[in-house]
Amino acid sequence: MAELDERRSNVQESLEQVTELLRRHRRNLLQRDAPLRPEQAEELVHKRDLEALQKTLDQLHPADVAYILEALPLEERLVVWDLVKTERDGEILLEVSDAVRETLIAHMETKELVAAAEQLDTDEIADLAPDLPREVIQDVFRSLPVEEREQLRAAMSYPEDAVGALMDFDMLTVREDITVEVVLRYLRRLDEMPDHTDQLFVVDREEHLLGLLPVNRLLVTDLDVPVSKIMGAVSLKLHPEEKAQDAALAFERYDLVSAPVVDGDGKLVGRVTVNGVMDFIRDETASEMLSAGGLREEEDLFASVWNSVKNRWTWLAVNLVTAFVASRVIGLFESSIAKIVALAALMPIIAGIGGNSGNQTITMIVRSLALGQISTANASKLFAKEIGVSAINGLIWGSVVGLFAFLIYHQWQLGVVMTSAMVLNLLLAAVMGVTIPLLMQKLGRDPAMGSSVMITAITDSGGFFIFLGLATLFLV
Amino acid sequence: MAELDERRSNVQESLEQVTELLRRHRRNLLQRDAPLRPEQAEELVHKRDLEALQKTLDQLHPADVAYILEALPLEERLVVWDLVKTERDGEILLEVSDAVRETLIAHMETKELVAAAEQLDTDEIADLAPDLPREVIQDVFRSLPVEEREQLRAAMSYPEDAVGALMDFDMLTVREDITVEVVLRYLRRLDEMPDHTDQLFVVDREEHLLGLLPVNRLLVTDLDVPVSKIMGAVSLKLHPEEKAQDAALAFERYDLVSAPVVDGDGKLVGRVTVNGVMDFIRDETASEMLSAGGLREEEDLFASVWNSVKNRWTWLAVNLVTAFVASRVIGLFESSIAKIVALAALMPIIAGIGGNSGNQTITMIVRSLALGQISTANASKLFAKEIGVSAINGLIWGSVVGLFAFLIYHQWQLGVVMTSAMVLNLLLAAVMGVTIPLLMQKLGRDPAMGSSVMITAITDSGGFFIFLGLATLFLV
Repeated sequence: MAELDERRSNVQESLEQVTELLRRHRRNLLQRDAPLRPEQAEELVHKRDLEALQKTLDQLHPADVAYILEALPLEERLVVWDLVKTERDGEILLEVSDAVRETLIAHMETKELVAAAEQLDTDEIADLAPDLPREVIQDVFRSLPVEEREQLRAAMSYPEDAVGALMDFDMLTVREDITVEVVLRYLRRLDEMPDHTDQLFVVDREEHLLGLLPVNRLLVTDLDVPVSKIMGAVSLKLHPEEKAQDAALAFERYDLVSAPVVDGDGKLVGRVTVNGVMDFIRDETASEMLSAGGLREEEDLFASVWNSVKNRWTWLAVNLVTAFVASRVIGLFESSIAKIVALAALMPIIAGIGGNSGNQTITMIVRSLALGQISTANASKLFAKEIGVSAINGLIWGSVVGLFAFLIYHQWQLGVVMTSAMVLNLLLAAVMGVTIPLLMQKLGRDPAMGSSVMITAITDSGGFFIFLGLATLFLV
Repeated sequence: MAELDERRSNVQESLEQVTELLRRHRRNLLQRDAPLRPEQAEELVHKRDLEALQKTLDQLHPADVAYILEALPLEERLVVWDLVKTERDGEILLEVSDAVRETLIAHMETKELVAAAEQLDTDEIADLAPDLPREVIQDVFRSLPVEEREQLRAAMSYPEDAVGALMDFDMLTVREDITVEVVLRYLRRLDEMPDHTDQLFVVDREEHLLGLLPVNRLLVTDLDVPVSKIMGAVSLKLHPEEKAQDAALAFERYDLVSAPVVDGDGKLVGRVTVNGVMDFIRDETASEMLSAGGLREEEDLFASVWNSVKNRWTWLAVNLVTAFVASRVIGLFESSIAKIVALAALMPIIAGIGGNSGNQTITMIVRSLALGQISTANASKLFAKEIGVSAINGLIWGSVVGLFAFLIYHQWQLGVVMTSAMVLNLLLAAVMGVTIPLLMQKLGRDPAMGSSVMITAITDSGGFFIFLGLATLFLV
């Protein structure tokens, strides 16, 4: 009876149905090229399948069609895309991932793209714009009324991570001197209200934002009360140049559904809604996950091998350089290793655990920085805490690895060197784990980006150096 | 003029003000213990400071107070917490992170906790319940009216990751046979509507959910139209036992503000709102980030060293075991290393790059699995693609490391072994990078958890084995 499951499995079924229909479709295409096939009949089957497919697609939510397109290999994706009703092209293009959108747009003609874009609101056109050919944008631009042209120009002028890029223009405004009854009469004349309208914006003649009128308050207030009596103060105004990340934090913190965007003069220019914020958060999270995993950008699941290689090579190249450095550090101690081969087998343990411990510290610091919890006042406390944690972990796990070394190589001095190296490398990891993100923040860079690679490089090379250095001093 | 920045810096300023006031407060406390201080005057200053602090706190949104509490070390946090008005305790406890909530609750008496909980809605009490002492829950329970008692019992019975745990009971219901005018009159009798009420739920006498009545449609419809004419079909019903993760996906995909929750008989039992979903997503993302970094749970920034050690030790222990295994793999080839010491310096390169490449594959597969884009039908295509990418990367980077080895050790055979080992280890990484998450998914486990540790363990030990094995066969 699980409805959500049911709905999901409906979408899943549609995907399977699409795949099956496509398989039959392709079989038919293949047979059509064969010399002896019963032409007419096959043609009909083929046609009927495509019609069934089209009918299935027509019934799906644009987001579900987008999901199906993303899950299909390129060739089949394009067959399905051709079956999607032209008037739905725009909204589906908005829903698919960047990588998949590129494959779809590459397959469309200028005319089709212009038609797709023209069905959308100006803020949505702006979202698509970076992926559209220049002539499409120009055509669309010419087809818009003056006011929308201005909106499009404005929306396209903001970087992807600015509030301006999240903003839409679907807001309802009222004056403060009218009564609730007049507002309700005005609303009743509309065919429908924009999505996510939880509040109307109260403005003066020059569009300066004066207050907020929650729809819900409108419903529980007597009809003869003027708007000015029940409107709420504007506790949070966004500006188009502000960071979308900060707006997202505000939506999360204050549980907003929509928020006004005003320009430098306090004039209302647009609004941000929670669904735009959720999409932004999802994209942000995805790109953080991807970059933490060493992927430069979202990869189409069925990207060509070559595109995937390009997407991944930066990370591998960076890591190769750090691996070379670590290798040369080991190279310095080759004569020690030649004398005590056990060192070669034991050294990755010191480096590895140091890297893990450093990454734990970095994860915590990066998160606290993102939440704005770290100030210069408490940084020294953090250092002290992390050093304490590392010292304890170093002693505990250092003793374990020391014992391990002793049990295998029956040399207690080796065990002592292991333990000391572990303590020192974990302390190095703690100090660098706090320092690196704080320093990157200070330099105005994103502390989440690349911190992990740096700490691992340091604890690898540092771990090898500390362990082999101590061994050379005391054992060789 | 950036308002958002301004607001943020207001909160930031409050934090600094709080810190400064606390500093003075402590200095006063210290001086009070000193024998020669001008007692009365200091006392006054001290009192005045605390009053100023209290005033600042009173003006802040509960979420902002929560942020300040999280950013303060334990001792100062408790001073601030004591200044928070009792009637705000409940909502602030809801906002702080789990780790910080524990420190606050540990500091409160049973009576205070009961009072705090009683200010909350039943679904909110259920959110706090896991952290509250048993006797507090019992007291709260006894103080509730029967209907809310049932709600609390129900809400507490669902696991944290179920829709039931996200659900609240603040929904408005109407019958289908009344007119818009009657609905509006009914609403106008309310003092206020619950937050995030974007739709009313249409039910029959037995509370079976019949349809949805968007508030916005209510506003644009003529007064004499009956509800049944304008209510929308229920396109998505949630069930309390369903996974919160799936509900979150539906909210994102279909841009919802609220959705009804029904029981097995189709009776309306509650609703889920977008703010609950956003909190859930934030918590999920945080715990994924933390677990990817090897932290078991969110750590209070100022947790004691000992609590931090406990939070981190599982991950270090697991990694220690995999490091021991890798160490023993190297141990197998000690006699080869003794003959060619260069092997010791080169082997970490093979292992490291293998781990990086494997993690790239896993990141992509885990993400596609989460989005439901991978089926048995396309799994083989994915394998083929990943193997292709690895083969190309292996040849490119393998040649680079081979050249590196040749340039340093002037032995072309060593270079060839490096290149071959690199290709083989990247292929291993590709195969395991696809297999591990698919297998974990099949076994009903979360593919995001632990995949990274497993692939690194395999490419480390595998890389050492392949490289040293090839070297032993062809060079020694």
